Amino acid sequence: MFEAHLEQASTLKKMIEAVKGLVNHVNINCNEQGMSIQAIDTSHVALVYLKLRTEGFALYNCEKSISLGISMDHLSKILKSAANNDTVIIRAEDEKDSLHIIFQPQDEKRVSTFELKLLDIDIPQLVIPVTEFTANVTIASGEFQRICRDLNALGENVSLSANKEGMRFSVDGETASGSVLLQPTDNVSDEESGANTVVQIKTPVEQSFPLRYMLSFAKATPISDIVTFEMADDIPLAVTYPIEGQGFVKYFLAPKIDGGSDDEGDEDEGDDEGDSMED
Amino acid sequence: MFEAHLEQASTLKKMIEAVKGLVNHVNINCNEQGMSIQAIDTSHVALVYLKLRTEGFALYNCEKSISLGISMDHLSKILKSAANNDTVIIRAEDEKDSLHIIFQPQDEKRVSTFELKLLDIDIPQLVIPVTEFTANVTIASGEFQRICRDLNALGENVSLSANKEGMRFSVDGETASGSVLLQPTDNVSDEESGANTVVQIKTPVEQSFPLRYMLSFAKATPISDIVTFEMADDIPLAVTYPIEGQGFVKYFLAPKIDGGSDDEGDEDEGDDEGDSMED
Amino acid sequence: MFEAHLEQASTLKKMIEAVKGLVNHVNINCNEQGMSIQAIDTSHVALVYLKLRTEGFALYNCEKSISLGISMDHLSKILKSAANNDTVIIRAEDEKDSLHIIFQPQDEKRVSTFELKLLDIDIPQLVIPVTEFTANVTIASGEFQRICRDLNALGENVSLSANKEGMRFSVDGETASGSVLLQPTDNVSDEESGANTVVQIKTPVEQSFPLRYMLSFAKATPISDIVTFEMADDIPLAVTYPIEGQGFVKYFLAPKIDGGSDDEGDEDEGDDEGDSMED
Repeated sequence: MFEAHLEQASTLKKMIEAVKGLVNHVNINCNEQGMSIQAIDTSHVALVYLKLRTEGFALYNCEKSISLGISMDHLSKILKSAANNDTVIIRAEDEKDSLHIIFQPQDEKRVSTFELKLLDIDIPQLVIPVTEFTANVTIASGEFQRICRDLNALGENVSLSANKEGMRFSVDGETASGSVLLQPTDNVSDEESGANTVVQIKTPVEQSFPLRYMLSFAKATPISDIVTFEMADDIPLAVTYPIEGQGFVKYFLAPKIDGGSDDEGDEDEGDDEGDSMED
Repeated sequence: MFEAHLEQASTLKKMIEAVKGLVNHVNINCNEQGMSIQAIDTSHVALVYLKLRTEGFALYNCEKSISLGISMDHLSKILKSAANNDTVIIRAEDEKDSLHIIFQPQDEKRVSTFELKLLDIDIPQLVIPVTEFTANVTIASGEFQRICRDLNALGENVSLSANKEGMRFSVDGETASGSVLLQPTDNVSDEESGANTVVQIKTPVEQSFPLRYMLSFAKATPISDIVTFEMADDIPLAVTYPIEGQGFVKYFLAPKIDGGSDDEGDEDEGDDEGDSMED
Repeated sequence: MFEAHLEQASTLKKMIEAVKGLVNHVNINCNEQGMSIQAIDTSHVALVYLKLRTEGFALYNCEKSISLGISMDHLSKILKSAANNDTVIIRAEDEKDSLHIIFQPQDEKRVSTFELKLLDIDIPQLVIPVTEFTANVTIASGEFQRICRDLNALGENVSLSANKEGMRFSVDGETASGSVLLQPTDNVSDEESGANTVVQIKTPVEQSFPLRYMLSFAKATPISDIVTFEMADDIPLAVTYPIEGQGFVKYFLAPKIDGGSDDEGDEDEGDDEGDSMED
């Protein structure tokens, strides 16, 4: 039997929203390290990799690895019933085809119990390549979300340019072009570290991406005050939202190259390598 | 001539919204006891019974009984013009086919005057049966509204089960089932009485209803902090929102029986009997 | 080269919203007095005249008169990227077909740069007739907006009646009629002058207008706490929202006459006359 208790339903809500924007049917993999999701969006351009370590749970009991096939839409509907501060209990009995989800508020006088049918989802285990990035930029996640929304009014593709000057997001549309430059802030400890732009550049990088994926990634904004962009020539961009001390949501997106886009063919076998991308 | 002054336009606004969700054309019956509305929804499954006693008015002058045929939609549009604290004056002259509605704010420098055409609505006077309920449960109205919204994501019908354990709302949907149990709170006087769940059970009852009617009833939530459910086997459920010291909005809904639903055929002639359901 | 710096992006945002509701393609005329827009809506019934004087700018450099053909929709999309307190820099180089727009926040670490393609818009210079109004009424702009919204639920045309009693807005709809009377407030200095109704009447006037134009005008509400109506028989209504110490947005609307409506044929050549309408 698998059982996990999460003290804040809001954590689970935010995580599901961060995945739901890209893909609906996923396997939630539970093992002794924690829960994780890896999934490719239907157009095979973007990959989402979510990890919540056992430290993130008030109770975590996983005797043997288990894979839970779940529709993010259905799970999201159930999670709407949870107040942000409710404790969530997730329970899957061996050989059963359903997941039990229980919400318990602090005052105990209200108990909500749900049973969600599990799906048999045939997704090959993905490979998250070990790569060396040459540019690493951390900005405020809210700033990123706002830039995506603003530039989305002008065109379909956004260019990300990371260099010593900072991080520039540019769109070249039919009727107007626009760009937003975030300059590096003083790297000294700021009380509002989320408001800082921190830039580490070995080699400057400039790549172009479909803006709609960036908008999907930005749905993870509630998860973290900051977001990190890792880039290098000819390899997918990695966009990471850390879940403080507990895990992360990470997106990979292939850059547009000569009018085409490379897809999941970039990734080889070997799941363990993915760990190298954890922070 | 009929004339009534209501000190808070918000009271009238909330009442109309509570009726409008179920039925558009109604007769507002005015007599020396106050104003009342009785109407059946178009699918003949639910009944709404609203009463505002003369105590609820700052001035109430009704020389002879009068029935005002009104479209809730049209009246609702006019009420949008009223601020919540405006005094509302309603005036109907004998033998005229229109209703005068006046909104007066406290500061007197703005006067809004409306004239609404009255309709000739042929609705048989309904009968509200005298029944003995075996289960009586009072819960927070906001809790009821939230449960309806949450469970509505899962399926079309909701089962209400009232017993000593409390009140359970359950939905059994295609992809997931869910239930919310509200356990009885200590019956001692609580400062926030609206947050209590009070259960009085002679015989436990479990009945199933279309969820969309529950959602309609829940539109009366602004009227009262609490809502009372009265149930007994084989008779319609009564759902009551008290208007403090002034009246109530009450809904009746036939339970689903073997895939069918009994309709207004349950009610016989005899309007006076309805009074027995007042609290 | 033309360059202008505006300290509050919100001022420009509000102005563009006030024009956008009536017309999309306009020429922004820049000369040594400031910036102005004059445009007729597509149905040729209403005219908008916007003026922002050089005093409204932190820096204003206009060597020679220039006319910038701009889509309000496109400009509005770009302005969404500006925070209300951002400084806006507008720059047009001679003989170039684009406008540079730059947003600078206070903290300087974020710079947004846009380039908007200019359009070649062939609009005859309009004439704003010198007229003598016989009724002048100033009311709270928020009150006007609310009245338009409320009455819009009842019918398509609104009658404006200005006399010593005050200003009355009336609608006579199919199912209901309604009117709102704003009575003159004491003309003495009130701390909240925006809440006053000030009425100056030589000859009482009553005219009827399509309500949807009033709703468009009311989109200028954020510009000013007050709005002034100037009326006289047989000439267009003028509705003015002052931009404090900096300019105004002014609308003209021909009254409905015997089922018809006079259009821009009322205006003759001669742009200079428009100045007579400035306050």
